[in-house]
Amino acid sequence: MRATFMYGPGDVRVQDVHTPTIREPTDAVVRVTLACVCGSDLHPYHSMTPSERGSAMGHEFIGVVEDVGSAVTTLRPGDLVISPFAYSDNTCAYCLDGIHTSCRHGGFYGSNGVGGAQAELVRVPQAAGTLVKVPSDVDEKLLPSLLTLSDVYLTGYHAAHMGRVTPGRTVTVIGDGAVGLSAVIAAKQLGAERIILMGRHTVRTDLGRDFGATDVVADRGADGIAQVLDLTGGEGSHIVLEAVGHMPAYEQAYGIVRPGGVISRVGVPQYDSAPVGFGSLFGKNITLTGGPAPVRAYIEAAIPQVLGGEIEPGRVFDAETSLDDVAEAYRLMDSREALKVLVRP
Amino acid sequence: MRATFMYGPGDVRVQDVHTPTIREPTDAVVRVTLACVCGSDLHPYHSMTPSERGSAMGHEFIGVVEDVGSAVTTLRPGDLVISPFAYSDNTCAYCLDGIHTSCRHGGFYGSNGVGGAQAELVRVPQAAGTLVKVPSDVDEKLLPSLLTLSDVYLTGYHAAHMGRVTPGRTVTVIGDGAVGLSAVIAAKQLGAERIILMGRHTVRTDLGRDFGATDVVADRGADGIAQVLDLTGGEGSHIVLEAVGHMPAYEQAYGIVRPGGVISRVGVPQYDSAPVGFGSLFGKNITLTGGPAPVRAYIEAAIPQVLGGEIEPGRVFDAETSLDDVAEAYRLMDSREALKVLVRP
Repeated sequence: MRATFMYGPGDVRVQDVHTPTIREPTDAVVRVTLACVCGSDLHPYHSMTPSERGSAMGHEFIGVVEDVGSAVTTLRPGDLVISPFAYSDNTCAYCLDGIHTSCRHGGFYGSNGVGGAQAELVRVPQAAGTLVKVPSDVDEKLLPSLLTLSDVYLTGYHAAHMGRVTPGRTVTVIGDGAVGLSAVIAAKQLGAERIILMGRHTVRTDLGRDFGATDVVADRGADGIAQVLDLTGGEGSHIVLEAVGHMPAYEQAYGIVRPGGVISRVGVPQYDSAPVGFGSLFGKNITLTGGPAPVRAYIEAAIPQVLGGEIEPGRVFDAETSLDDVAEAYRLMDSREALKVLVRP
Repeated sequence: MRATFMYGPGDVRVQDVHTPTIREPTDAVVRVTLACVCGSDLHPYHSMTPSERGSAMGHEFIGVVEDVGSAVTTLRPGDLVISPFAYSDNTCAYCLDGIHTSCRHGGFYGSNGVGGAQAELVRVPQAAGTLVKVPSDVDEKLLPSLLTLSDVYLTGYHAAHMGRVTPGRTVTVIGDGAVGLSAVIAAKQLGAERIILMGRHTVRTDLGRDFGATDVVADRGADGIAQVLDLTGGEGSHIVLEAVGHMPAYEQAYGIVRPGGVISRVGVPQYDSAPVGFGSLFGKNITLTGGPAPVRAYIEAAIPQVLGGEIEPGRVFDAETSLDDVAEAYRLMDSREALKVLVRP
């Protein structure tokens, strides 16, 4: 079968590999219907150490079950399923806490002998815990939105959930990428009264307005901070959803957050240490939260919202390639010609 | 009147100064009944830059109202009152959020023309918002516990509150000082099932057990982390209350906290930056919270708990001096001969 590997910065190739098969009784093998490229895939695209073996790529997909291991009783060949970007048993203490990304038997696609999702077929460990069924006769137009439940929309939702967005709150979203725009949708779903979107790509912030952003701030740094404070009567934003992961976004976050407020991060931090002392977080009683989104915890509640047309997170996809052209999908996202690219095997 | 000033490390003096009077219509002047020395007073005691003017010391007190400004209608001379360590109007947007330490018209004793509380009399700005009355005929034995509502007990309570301690949770308290022991009381009040106290002064950890600690871990660093993980079946502590403020305590906190858990800090951080990246907080979805305790938000609910004997936080006081001997109070706390020292003008 065909699958995507990255060998170094900018070097993405589709190759023939062995067809995955059931290894553990808890496995399933899924034929990928729709996959995509993630903003986080661009980090190695920029800076991975060149590798002769390559890294299997892709962790977001919906597909049809081909085969299941003997311990998997809740899925059958032919089921249409969504996979979270992390697999998990959905039964361990951490999963029961709703932190499936820390599952004691879980892991991530593209590592530890598990392939990537930018491929024709994927072996899914802990399949009964991981995969979530959707009706097989679902309108094909809804598939992109269902695909976002694999990662991007529910990562934005995780930011809003951990940020404790509730009706009446002012929420600022830092970043107009697909996760930031998803965070706008989620903040609106959770009742935010005002949603300030910080981003400078007009096409994207316009989509953000469609999703519910009430204000857009294009400036960054001190100017951006001043504008958000101005918009909030000098008081700051109750909640800041940080969907970038770089230090300037973190600094912007504690500059605009209201005393007693929350900074919720879902952009994977590209730094190890950051200001947390009296002058940044402590003095104002700021809460810092977030992490890799345990989308498995949220996926079942989100499916009916997509099927009912309540949310349309699939609108973040603005381009599509075949699997064989996946390198072009990376190029389009890296050059910002596309916001997020569907990959159809 | 007599008041306490610090001129440099270890240099604490009691001096005659002008008797404070009403300056603003929102002021009150309070005669101090009981004050004390705070762990945070030991920071300048160790490291303040020598000063010819000296710093007015003390921020915890109960006392009797002597005089009120024309705008203060809710207090009268003779009222017995508790003062939070920060004054606040109790009406601004931040106070209404419960973050009185960020009050737009608030401030701290010993700065900006307001005296310290290790004194005979104190001018209290924003008196109607700041001071909380207690019955004048209260049993004198309860005064030390009422005094702890000025700072130390409710700082421990703030840690537990921001850490979202709820019934059934495992809580670890780092630090066996008066704030740490107060956090133990508060965690128990909020229903924690298990309270692990990390500290190595047996007299203090014994008091911690009296207050509700179920386990004591004397080791620090990697050994301490290993013991807490062992006590929690390898899963870690849902909530960590960090009542020290030094980097090793922070590192201990993220080493023992369970994925999805909370680190709540009330020890004033003696560092500006700290690890917050994938390997410390982000990867495990850890929430970092806390700050200076807005004790004004909690004081009214805590008074009946003290009056009813439900909590006895005054047990953290194990020594007492007169105001003239306040230098001895500092010495006793600095040498750890005393846990916390009452000062009686």
